Amino acid sequence: MPASLLQHPFMSQTALSQCNAQAMVKAMLAFELGLAEVQEASGAVPAGVSRSMRESLEAHVFDSEAIAAGIASGGNAAIPFVKQARSALPDDLRRYFHQGATSQDVVDSALMLLLKPRLVALESLLVRCRSAAISLMEAHAGTVMVGRTLMQQALPITFGVKVAHWAVGLEQARRRLAAIELPVQFGGAVGVHSGLEGAGGDNLGLIFMDALAGRLGLDVPILPWHTDRQPVHALGTALDAVAGAAEKLALDVSLLTQTEVGEVAEPSAPGMGESSSMPHKRNPVRCALIRGAARQVHGHTTVLLNAAAQPLERGLGEWHAEWSPLIDSALLLEGALEQAAVLLEGLEVHPEAMRRNLAVTGGGIMAEPVAKLLVPTQGPDVAKRISAEAAETARLQGIAYADAINCHPEVRGRLEAETVARATNPALYLGSSKDQVQRARNWLLDG
Amino acid sequence: MPASLLQHPFMSQTALSQCNAQAMVKAMLAFELGLAEVQEASGAVPAGVSRSMRESLEAHVFDSEAIAAGIASGGNAAIPFVKQARSALPDDLRRYFHQGATSQDVVDSALMLLLKPRLVALESLLVRCRSAAISLMEAHAGTVMVGRTLMQQALPITFGVKVAHWAVGLEQARRRLAAIELPVQFGGAVGVHSGLEGAGGDNLGLIFMDALAGRLGLDVPILPWHTDRQPVHALGTALDAVAGAAEKLALDVSLLTQTEVGEVAEPSAPGMGESSSMPHKRNPVRCALIRGAARQVHGHTTVLLNAAAQPLERGLGEWHAEWSPLIDSALLLEGALEQAAVLLEGLEVHPEAMRRNLAVTGGGIMAEPVAKLLVPTQGPDVAKRISAEAAETARLQGIAYADAINCHPEVRGRLEAETVARATNPALYLGSSKDQVQRARNWLLDG
Amino acid sequence: MPASLLQHPFMSQTALSQCNAQAMVKAMLAFELGLAEVQEASGAVPAGVSRSMRESLEAHVFDSEAIAAGIASGGNAAIPFVKQARSALPDDLRRYFHQGATSQDVVDSALMLLLKPRLVALESLLVRCRSAAISLMEAHAGTVMVGRTLMQQALPITFGVKVAHWAVGLEQARRRLAAIELPVQFGGAVGVHSGLEGAGGDNLGLIFMDALAGRLGLDVPILPWHTDRQPVHALGTALDAVAGAAEKLALDVSLLTQTEVGEVAEPSAPGMGESSSMPHKRNPVRCALIRGAARQVHGHTTVLLNAAAQPLERGLGEWHAEWSPLIDSALLLEGALEQAAVLLEGLEVHPEAMRRNLAVTGGGIMAEPVAKLLVPTQGPDVAKRISAEAAETARLQGIAYADAINCHPEVRGRLEAETVARATNPALYLGSSKDQVQRARNWLLDG
Amino acid sequence: MPASLLQHPFMSQTALSQCNAQAMVKAMLAFELGLAEVQEASGAVPAGVSRSMRESLEAHVFDSEAIAAGIASGGNAAIPFVKQARSALPDDLRRYFHQGATSQDVVDSALMLLLKPRLVALESLLVRCRSAAISLMEAHAGTVMVGRTLMQQALPITFGVKVAHWAVGLEQARRRLAAIELPVQFGGAVGVHSGLEGAGGDNLGLIFMDALAGRLGLDVPILPWHTDRQPVHALGTALDAVAGAAEKLALDVSLLTQTEVGEVAEPSAPGMGESSSMPHKRNPVRCALIRGAARQVHGHTTVLLNAAAQPLERGLGEWHAEWSPLIDSALLLEGALEQAAVLLEGLEVHPEAMRRNLAVTGGGIMAEPVAKLLVPTQGPDVAKRISAEAAETARLQGIAYADAINCHPEVRGRLEAETVARATNPALYLGSSKDQVQRARNWLLDG
Repeated sequence: MPASLLQHPFMSQTALSQCNAQAMVKAMLAFELGLAEVQEASGAVPAGVSRSMRESLEAHVFDSEAIAAGIASGGNAAIPFVKQARSALPDDLRRYFHQGATSQDVVDSALMLLLKPRLVALESLLVRCRSAAISLMEAHAGTVMVGRTLMQQALPITFGVKVAHWAVGLEQARRRLAAIELPVQFGGAVGVHSGLEGAGGDNLGLIFMDALAGRLGLDVPILPWHTDRQPVHALGTALDAVAGAAEKLALDVSLLTQTEVGEVAEPSAPGMGESSSMPHKRNPVRCALIRGAARQVHGHTTVLLNAAAQPLERGLGEWHAEWSPLIDSALLLEGALEQAAVLLEGLEVHPEAMRRNLAVTGGGIMAEPVAKLLVPTQGPDVAKRISAEAAETARLQGIAYADAINCHPEVRGRLEAETVARATNPALYLGSSKDQVQRARNWLLDG
Repeated sequence: MPASLLQHPFMSQTALSQCNAQAMVKAMLAFELGLAEVQEASGAVPAGVSRSMRESLEAHVFDSEAIAAGIASGGNAAIPFVKQARSALPDDLRRYFHQGATSQDVVDSALMLLLKPRLVALESLLVRCRSAAISLMEAHAGTVMVGRTLMQQALPITFGVKVAHWAVGLEQARRRLAAIELPVQFGGAVGVHSGLEGAGGDNLGLIFMDALAGRLGLDVPILPWHTDRQPVHALGTALDAVAGAAEKLALDVSLLTQTEVGEVAEPSAPGMGESSSMPHKRNPVRCALIRGAARQVHGHTTVLLNAAAQPLERGLGEWHAEWSPLIDSALLLEGALEQAAVLLEGLEVHPEAMRRNLAVTGGGIMAEPVAKLLVPTQGPDVAKRISAEAAETARLQGIAYADAINCHPEVRGRLEAETVARATNPALYLGSSKDQVQRARNWLLDG
Repeated sequence: MPASLLQHPFMSQTALSQCNAQAMVKAMLAFELGLAEVQEASGAVPAGVSRSMRESLEAHVFDSEAIAAGIASGGNAAIPFVKQARSALPDDLRRYFHQGATSQDVVDSALMLLLKPRLVALESLLVRCRSAAISLMEAHAGTVMVGRTLMQQALPITFGVKVAHWAVGLEQARRRLAAIELPVQFGGAVGVHSGLEGAGGDNLGLIFMDALAGRLGLDVPILPWHTDRQPVHALGTALDAVAGAAEKLALDVSLLTQTEVGEVAEPSAPGMGESSSMPHKRNPVRCALIRGAARQVHGHTTVLLNAAAQPLERGLGEWHAEWSPLIDSALLLEGALEQAAVLLEGLEVHPEAMRRNLAVTGGGIMAEPVAKLLVPTQGPDVAKRISAEAAETARLQGIAYADAINCHPEVRGRLEAETVARATNPALYLGSSKDQVQRARNWLLDG
Repeated sequence: MPASLLQHPFMSQTALSQCNAQAMVKAMLAFELGLAEVQEASGAVPAGVSRSMRESLEAHVFDSEAIAAGIASGGNAAIPFVKQARSALPDDLRRYFHQGATSQDVVDSALMLLLKPRLVALESLLVRCRSAAISLMEAHAGTVMVGRTLMQQALPITFGVKVAHWAVGLEQARRRLAAIELPVQFGGAVGVHSGLEGAGGDNLGLIFMDALAGRLGLDVPILPWHTDRQPVHALGTALDAVAGAAEKLALDVSLLTQTEVGEVAEPSAPGMGESSSMPHKRNPVRCALIRGAARQVHGHTTVLLNAAAQPLERGLGEWHAEWSPLIDSALLLEGALEQAAVLLEGLEVHPEAMRRNLAVTGGGIMAEPVAKLLVPTQGPDVAKRISAEAAETARLQGIAYADAINCHPEVRGRLEAETVARATNPALYLGSSKDQVQRARNWLLDG
C-alpha cells in the first residue's frame, strides 16, 4: 500500500475495508451479472444463462493480484477482470458475458456501486452530527460567549447559536449530498449501444440501461455519460461541500481550544491527543485529522473540476484521472465525519472560560451598547469617546466596566446604575441568538 | 484595470459593464435603502425616513474612486461606502443608515445583487444553447460519423447523438445552476442581530432579514451565513459545472475541426479566426476562448473550495478571497456561453467529411460487426482474424471493406453479399443513436 | 474594470497602474521595434527602417479601446495591435513590421516585459521585509514567549526565533524568485522561424531571438517556448512560494493578535483596522489582505499547473488561460508584500503579554524540564505524574509552579529550590533560539 | 489498500513497493538511530548506546499493523512507532531513544528519506528520456511534417524539432528537480531544540541537526522547517513541473496518433492498447496513463500550495495534509516517467503519414511562401488572393499546388517553374528546425 501510514489516519477504516481490490472486483462482477440478467429478461440471452453465469463466477476466486498486474496494458481494471472472468466461465457462456459493454461501463458502474454504501455511511454520520449538534445547541442556547470577527473579540453571542451555524452548514451539505444521483453507466463501445438490436430490429440499449440501473440499485441516467461527466462533477463537489462544512467545525473548535481561550475541548479519551514529550498537552487531534482530510478532498476535487471536459466518446487520461480522487474523497470524508461526530457528541464546553474571556477587554466589547445609551444626551462622537475611555479604565484598574462607566466624570449621575448594569451585561445583548437556535432547530428537524 | 487586454477577450462585455465599480456602489446602496425600508415598515425607524434617505442618496453622485482609495484601511468596500453615504445624508438621517448592519452584510448582499442579473443572463444563454442544440441534433439525427474513444476511431455514431450528449451536459448544469439560491446576508456585527430589539423587547433581526430578502429579490437564508459559506460553495461549483459542460463542447469542436478531420467548423464571420500571416488558416477562436475561460473558472473555484471553512464569526482573509473569484467566474462563464451559443447556432457541419473519415480505416471500424457474422460458422478467434485481415486488404488495395470480405478465401461463397453489405454499412450500425436523440429531446423540452 | 472594488484592496496600486491596457500596448510595441532593430542590424531590413518605424509609432496614439474591441475575433491582443500599428505606418515600412513574428511571440514577450519591473518591485519589497525582519529578530532575540504546536501552548521559545523563521521562509522564496528567468519569446508562426533565411540561405531565427532578448533586457531562452511552458510554470510557482511565505507571516500575526493572546499587533495607523460599529476593535486588516491575496494566488497557480501541457505548436485555450492568472498573481503578490513590509517594519510587540501567556498554564508548559529533573531519582513514570500534578495544583491554587513542585509531598526536600527555580524558568529553557537567530542572520545577510 | 485497482495503473510498482508501511517504519527507525549516533558522537549519550540500540531495533520485527492502529490517537505515525520501539528496547536504553525529538521531526525526515531514492529513480528515468529524445530528434532532424497551431495545420516543421522541444521541456524540469534539496528536519517540540544543552551549557541542537543530515544523506537546512514549508513547496512544484513536461509529450503523441493523423504510434507490445471488443483498435494507453497521472499530481500540488502557511510552531491539519499528496505525487510521477521513457525509446514514427498530411490542404499551408514570391510584382493583397485561389484549385482538382500556381491566369509565365517548385516544397521551408535540433542537442548534453 502506498505509504499507508501517511494516509491511514485520515480515512475511515471501515470504508477502506469495503473499497479494497476485492470489493472492486465484486462490484465489477455485480455489473456484469446484472447486465446478463437484464439481457436474459429481454430475451437477448437464452434463459438460464445468467443464473449459470452467476453460479460459476460467484464460486470463482478472483485473483486480484493478477488483475492488478494486467491493468497496465489496457489502462483500466475492467480489461483484465473481463479476461479472467471469461476464462473462468464454461465455453458456452463466454459469449454472453460483457455483451454490449465496454470497459468504461464496468469501471464507472463499479465505482458507483462502491460509492453507494459510502453515501449511506456519510448520510448516517451526518445525521449523527445533526442530532449531536441539536442537543448541543439546545443545551447552550443561553450560554453566553464572545463572538469574534477577524479573530478579534466583537460582541456577545451564545454558544448555542454558534453550534446552530455549524449544524446548518453541515445540514445544507447533507441535503445537497442526499440529492446526488449515482447513475449506472452503460453505453457500449462508443456510448450508443452498438449492435444491441433485438429480434424486431429495435435497439435495446436504453432498455438494458434502465433495467440495469434498477437491478443494481443505481439511478437511471438520462443518457450514457461516458464523456458527459456532470454526474461526477455534481458528486465530487457535493462531497467537497460536506468536507468544507466539517472543516469549519474543526477550525472553530481548534480556535476555541487554544490554551489562552479554552472555551471548548475535544472529548477526552485515553491517549487521545497526548504528546509523547509534553505531559501537560492535549492536542486537538480530531480537528487536525478533519482539517488534514478536508484539504486533501479539495485537492481531489480540483482534479475533477479540471477533468469535467472529456474528448469525444472516451477520455484519454481525463477519465482515468477521476477514479482515485473520487473514491479517495469519499474515504477521506468518511474519516473526517467519524471524527466530527465524536467531536460533536462529546465536546467539552467550558462556560466559565467563556465568561472569563467576555471580561478580558474590561468590558470593551460592551462599548457599543453603552455608547448607544449616551448618544441621546451626548451625541454620537462624545458617546463613543466616553465608552472607549471607560473600557480603558476598566482594563487598567481591573474594575468592572459598569463601574468605570458610572465613575466616568461625564457620566456620573446621569445614568441609572441599573440601566448601566443592563447595558454592560453581555447576557442581555444576545440579539437573535435564541431565535436563531429555534429557527435552526425547526429547519434541521424538517430535513 | 489590471492588464485588461489579457482578460478582456474571455469575459462578457455586457456583463463587465454591469459589474463595474458604479454597479457595486449601486448594489451596496440598494442593500442599505432596502434595510431602512424594512426597518421603517416595522416601526424601528420613523415613518418617512427611508424615503428621504432614498431621495437624498439617489441624488448623490458617489465618488467610486474615493471609495476605492478608502478600501485598504478597512479591507472592504462597504466601510468607505458607508462613510461616504453617511456624510451625504442630512444629520437627522445618519443614525438610521446602516443600522444594525455590518460590512459583511453589505458586501455579501451586494455581491448577490450583482450576480442575480448574471444568473438571468446565464440562464438565457443556456436556453439559447439548448434550442440550438435541439435543432442541431434533430437535423443530424441520421448523420453518420465515427465515434472515437481515446481519440481513436472506434465504431459509428451519429452527429445527432453527439450533440445530444453536449445538450444533456449543458442542461444538467443549467438545472443545477437554476436551483441555486442567492440569499441576502444580514446578521450585524457578529451575525446575531445585536441590539435590534423592538419596542416589545423581541429581537427583530430575523424579521428584518426575511423582509429584506423579499424587498431585494434575493432568497431568504436559513440563518445569516457570514461564516457558513455553503451558499457560496454551491454557487461557485454550479458555475464551474456549466463551465465544464461548455468546455466539453469546445473540446469536441476543436478536435473535430482539426485540418485532418474537418467534420465541423466554427461559424464563419468576417475576420473571425483569421491568422495574421497564414491565408489558409481559420482558427477555432471561439473554442480557444471557451477553453481559456473555463480553465480560469476552475482556478477560481479552487479558491472557493479552500475558503469554505471560515473562522468563528468572520473570515480573516478567507472571506475576502471569495469576492473576485466569484464575480470573475460569472463574468468568464458568461463570456464562454456567449461563444458557445454562437457556436451551436452557427456550427458548420460537414457530413461528407464524416463519411470520408468513416472510410479511412478501410472499413476497419466495421470489423466488429463483420466478426459477429462469422462467429456462428468459424468461431470467435477465426472470425476476429478474418475480419482484421480483410480490413488490412481493403486499406492496402484501396477497395471497399465489403469487397475485401467477400473475396477473403475463407469467406468466399459463405455469406450473402447483401448480408455483408449490411454488416459493413456504418449507417446500419448506429445502435441507440436515434433513440438517444429522441430521449434527450423529450428530457430537454421537459426542463 | 470587473468589479474593481472587489479586487482593488488586494492588488498593488502602483503595479496596477503599470499594467493597464496602455502598458500592454507599450510592451507589445517594444517587442516589435526591438525586432525590427535586430533585423536591421543583421541586414534583413534596410538601414534606417527601424528608426523610422520607431519615430512613426512612438508618435502614434494607440487606441486601446479599439484594440480591446478587436481582440475577440483573433483571440488575443496582438492581432488588433499589429493591424492598428501597420495602418499607422507609412506604406513602405509596413512589410518590415512584425516580420517573421506571430501573435504568441508578441503576447508572451509583452507579458515578460510587463512582469520584469514587477519582479524588481517584488525583490525590493522582499529586501525591505528582510531588513525589517532582521531588526525585529535581533531586537527580540531574548524576548521569551511560548511556542505553540497544534495551536496549544507547548514550550518556551523567543519571539526572535519566530521572526527568524518568518525571515528564512521569505528569503528562501526571494532567492527562488530571483533565480527565475524571463525569456523573450520569438519563434514565428510554428516556432521554427519560418522564412527568416538570410542572404546566405542560413536561417537567422535563433540569431534574432538571442539579439532581441538582449535588446529588450529579457533572458535568452534555449529554444522558443511557445508550447514548452516550463518558464511559465517556474515563474508562477515561484510567485506562489512567496505568497505562501507571506501568508505564513500573516497567519502567525493573526493568531498572536487575537484578543486573548495579544502578543503582537499590526502597526497602528489612522483609521486602519477600525470597525464601523465597534469602538474597541482593531482588526488585523493587513493580515486579512495578505491572506486574501495569497489564496487567490494559489488559485491562479492551479490554472498554470493545469495548463503546462499545451498541444503541438500552440495552445488552444491552454495558452490563453495563462495570461490573467500570471499577471494577476504578480499584482496580488505585490499588494500582499506591500502589506507585509509595513507589518514587519511597524509590528507592535508586547513582551508583557508574552510573559502573561507563559503563565496561564500555571507552569504546565515547564512540566517537561521538571520531569527530567525527577527522572534520575523517581523514574520516568512517577516523574511525569508528579510534574503534571504540580501543574494542576499551581493552576487551581494560583501559585507559582516552582512552589507547587517544592511543596509536592513526593518532592519536598529532595530538590534544591534553586534547581527547581531554574527548571521552571522559561527564560532558561530556550534551546537553540539564540543560535538560530544568529545563524539566520548570517544566512540572510549572505543573500 | 484504498481501491488499489483504481490507483494501481498510474503508480510505479517498483516505487510503491519501496514506500509501503515497512519502508516508512524503516525510515523512521533510520532517523532515530542516526539521532542517537550523532548524540553519542557529541558525548550527549554514553558510548555504545547507539550501537546497542541499533542491534536491538534492527532485530525487532515492527508490527506495522499495530502502528497503523495506533495512529489515530496522536494523529501521526511517529507516536505509535516511538512507543513500539521504546518497549522493544532494554530499560537502560529507552531514555536515549527519540531524545530531543518530536513527532514532526520523525515524520518529516522519514518522508525525505523515502523520497530520496524516488528522486534518484526520477532522475534516472529523465536521463533515459533525454537519451531517447536525443536519438529521436537526431534521427528525424530532416523528417518534414506539418506544424499545427490551435490544432490547425500551419506551416512545415520537422519531427526532429518537435522532439527537441519535448526534450528541452523535460530537461528544464529535470534540472529544476535535481536542484531540489531534501533537508533533514530536527527541531524538537517547538523547533528550538529545547533541553539539548551540552555539558558546557551550550545548546547542541543545530550541531545535532547538521550532523544528522550528514549521517542520513539528507541536506542541511538553514533552520528547522517545521512551519517554514518552503522546502515542501519547492519539491512539490518541481515534481509538478516534470509532470507537466511529461504531459505535454503525452498530449502531442495522443494528437499525432489519432486515426486520421497517424503520424506516430505508441510502441507496440503484446496486448498493449488492445481493445476488448474492437479488433482494429490500438489505444494510446501509455499516453492515457501519463495524462491521468499528471492531472492527479496537479491536484496534489494544489494541496501543497494551500498548505504552505502553517500556524505558529506546528500545523493543525496543514502539516498532516501534506504527507499523502507529496509521496503520491512522487509515485504517480515515477509511473508516468516509466511510461514516457518507453514511449520515447520505442515511438513509431510514420514519415509517410507526415508527408500525406502535408498535402491534405492541397498546398494551402505553402500559401504564405508563395504569396511572398508574388508580392514584389503584384502587391500583397493580390498575392494573398492568388495564393489562396490556387490552394482551392489544388484541393478541388486534386492537383499539386505548384501546378495550380503555375496555371493560375495571373501567374502563368511570370514565375519560373523551379522557383515555384522551391516555394511550394515544404522541405525547403523548415526555418530554424535543424539549428534548433543542434542547439537543443548541445544544451541537453551539457546538462
